[in-house]
Amino acid sequence: MDTLAELVDADWGTVSDRARQQVRLAFLDVVAVALAAAGDPAPRAVAGYLARAGAGPVPLPGTSGLSAQHAAVGWGTLAHARDFDDISEVLHGHPSAVLVPAVLAVGYRDGASGADLVDAYLSGYEAIGRVSAGAADEQRSRGWHTTATIGVLGATVAAARLLGLSAHRTRHALGIATSTASGVQANFGSPVKPLHAGWAAGNGVMAAELAAAGIDAGPGALHAPASYLEVLGGRWQEPAGRPHIEDGLRFKPYPCCGSATGLVDCAVDLHTLVTDGPGVDAIESVVCSVLPQTDRTLRYRAPSTGDEARFSPEFCVAQGLAGGRLDESCFRDGFGERSAALAPLVRRVTRRIVAEVELPPGSKDVQLTVRFRGGRTVAARSTAPRGHPRNPMTRADLEEKFAACTAGTLAPDAAARIAARLAALDREPRIADLLDDVLRPMSVLPR
Amino acid sequence: MDTLAELVDADWGTVSDRARQQVRLAFLDVVAVALAAAGDPAPRAVAGYLARAGAGPVPLPGTSGLSAQHAAVGWGTLAHARDFDDISEVLHGHPSAVLVPAVLAVGYRDGASGADLVDAYLSGYEAIGRVSAGAADEQRSRGWHTTATIGVLGATVAAARLLGLSAHRTRHALGIATSTASGVQANFGSPVKPLHAGWAAGNGVMAAELAAAGIDAGPGALHAPASYLEVLGGRWQEPAGRPHIEDGLRFKPYPCCGSATGLVDCAVDLHTLVTDGPGVDAIESVVCSVLPQTDRTLRYRAPSTGDEARFSPEFCVAQGLAGGRLDESCFRDGFGERSAALAPLVRRVTRRIVAEVELPPGSKDVQLTVRFRGGRTVAARSTAPRGHPRNPMTRADLEEKFAACTAGTLAPDAAARIAARLAALDREPRIADLLDDVLRPMSVLPR
Repeated sequence: MDTLAELVDADWGTVSDRARQQVRLAFLDVVAVALAAAGDPAPRAVAGYLARAGAGPVPLPGTSGLSAQHAAVGWGTLAHARDFDDISEVLHGHPSAVLVPAVLAVGYRDGASGADLVDAYLSGYEAIGRVSAGAADEQRSRGWHTTATIGVLGATVAAARLLGLSAHRTRHALGIATSTASGVQANFGSPVKPLHAGWAAGNGVMAAELAAAGIDAGPGALHAPASYLEVLGGRWQEPAGRPHIEDGLRFKPYPCCGSATGLVDCAVDLHTLVTDGPGVDAIESVVCSVLPQTDRTLRYRAPSTGDEARFSPEFCVAQGLAGGRLDESCFRDGFGERSAALAPLVRRVTRRIVAEVELPPGSKDVQLTVRFRGGRTVAARSTAPRGHPRNPMTRADLEEKFAACTAGTLAPDAAARIAARLAALDREPRIADLLDDVLRPMSVLPR
Repeated sequence: MDTLAELVDADWGTVSDRARQQVRLAFLDVVAVALAAAGDPAPRAVAGYLARAGAGPVPLPGTSGLSAQHAAVGWGTLAHARDFDDISEVLHGHPSAVLVPAVLAVGYRDGASGADLVDAYLSGYEAIGRVSAGAADEQRSRGWHTTATIGVLGATVAAARLLGLSAHRTRHALGIATSTASGVQANFGSPVKPLHAGWAAGNGVMAAELAAAGIDAGPGALHAPASYLEVLGGRWQEPAGRPHIEDGLRFKPYPCCGSATGLVDCAVDLHTLVTDGPGVDAIESVVCSVLPQTDRTLRYRAPSTGDEARFSPEFCVAQGLAGGRLDESCFRDGFGERSAALAPLVRRVTRRIVAEVELPPGSKDVQLTVRFRGGRTVAARSTAPRGHPRNPMTRADLEEKFAACTAGTLAPDAAARIAARLAALDREPRIADLLDDVLRPMSVLPR
């Protein structure tokens, strides 16, 4: 696993233009979804705590500036607050909500350029990919949130690169980070899940900085007995050669658990057919196909809060069928009334667990079947959910998402200008200037 | 497991005088071993990092003051830096290096009294005991450092009590804390192990403060599927009725892994017999009995650093036999030369793994057999290591340890005065005044 530490020195000049563009869009997307959540109650409470726990130079909405560690926690929490941030398929989780906050915080403080951040992101992303290849399935099945437990190693490598650590010191940084890896799935659907991304980002920054300060880890923290892989689960798999970023990121069209995206696509597709046809009240049953490992992730059949509803295919599908859309408004103010109105339909949604053997490996095949009283049925199928690299969101889609996410905090012209700069991140000479420009026009929250 | 959250409101008036005295001595002992390490390179590097990451009102040597979270990290790291702090047998780890820093940091900031701190400690200790009863064996065997993974739940309850949280908010605090539980044994023998105690203390403070700020955890973070016990290991065991503190703490006479204490006792006991008799050079072999589960904890047969040597029975026993003592000087400046001089004897020390079935449950029986060239053998046996509740260190012993630990930083009269106040902690009206009085006369380090 020394290959992980060596990623601090990797030359990313060979990555395809398409992959590099994905990374720029990841920054654009993280800033969008983070700003969208900046006024939400839970991230504001977290920011209030962070302001007491770690003042410093790095900006975070709701504070007068934080240390790099705490700014990373705060931005990570914001980025993941609505479960609207991108996904890596090999991680089964959210790489950019961890990596972008870590490099933004360190890069802001230390005067890094946009190109520095892209390279640091690529090193961190590749570390996540290499660990995930042999460990993500096992860790997920044990109940870990891989965004956090694997993400922290990526944040560590990314931060180590920005700090200019040698591969030797990065090995110690990774060893330190292994003892901070945590995050249980039982907190899915609560405000603690976004903190998982924040803590992974902040702990990666901390691990890199402690290693830079001379703290050594145990000689075998990644691979010896009682080390990271043995304790948290998984095995080391030699890298295949092709950078993981070439597989593409999966951007999200809906602010709900990514495992439900394909089902929501189907529900939205069937909406007009239902409402122009027999109507919602005529629905007798709705059957969702769900893979065994996502059945556990989608923890809530009868959600009692908006955050739980993001992890409920029953709610998300009912909303998609009845409303033809699934956006943030479905999960927040007035959730109680919306949920009560949808409840009769939600109760008619059931899951059919599809054994993995029925599907090709890595399949994203899902199916939604709606049966009306009287026996008529309609069905929809999704083979690649919207936003998946096989069904991608374009730069224009993501600029539109940016505008929608920042509609409450930025004037449209400021949003367009900032989105354009984020989408060309490598050209920014100082990331601090860009972030200041993002935050300066914000109308809702104090800096 | 709701019983854990209810501990914030527990009435500790019923605890025996002896148990309460143990708690006061735990504070005395933690302050002693923490001050002893305050000038060591690794804790100083950690303090330097913490000063950048989280400035605030709470003092820590080497900083100009930290937030409660970071002060708890710093004091926890100091308290565990030399592996010289107390042990709970049910935890298989170090309760006071986690609990004392957490309550000291919050109590300093919020104007708590000594009696408040004792009660908060007792609530936290009992939480640790109840989780440990069903989970410590399993977590240890999986490779977790239970000091951290179970300790953080104790720190959370202790901090929640000082913050005046309800049992309901404490339940959320515990849920938040479950997603921070970490610390792998692969970092034993490195400066990361002390950070485990610090992070557990700091994360407990953070979890309690986030819950106080209104952050909710998942409804089943402690016991649902993919929750703490399922993911980290163990099961819930109903409390037996008698507070765990009544079992007593185990204070340490030597700054090495507690699993080696009984062997070191034997070696020290045999020292005169060896050196006045055939001499060290005449030793042909030394056989240590080691339980299977401590064989893994004692990771180093041929340690290359002082910190590794604390986890090497081979080194510790050789030093005890040859030198008749095992104190901090054996592990630090000049370790290389000492280690080279001892190496021929260290190589002659071997382990005999004793199956647990050979011993009564919970046995502390160890045996050391020294065989001289020519066939003569001598042996020693320890049924309760020095410092164990069955072979306790007295208040006078611990005041002597306090004086020795602070000899480099406090004048003897200041040390005696402060030790007396710590040993009567319940009578301190403001813990902040006491801690200021501890730190004011320190000569070596800036505040």
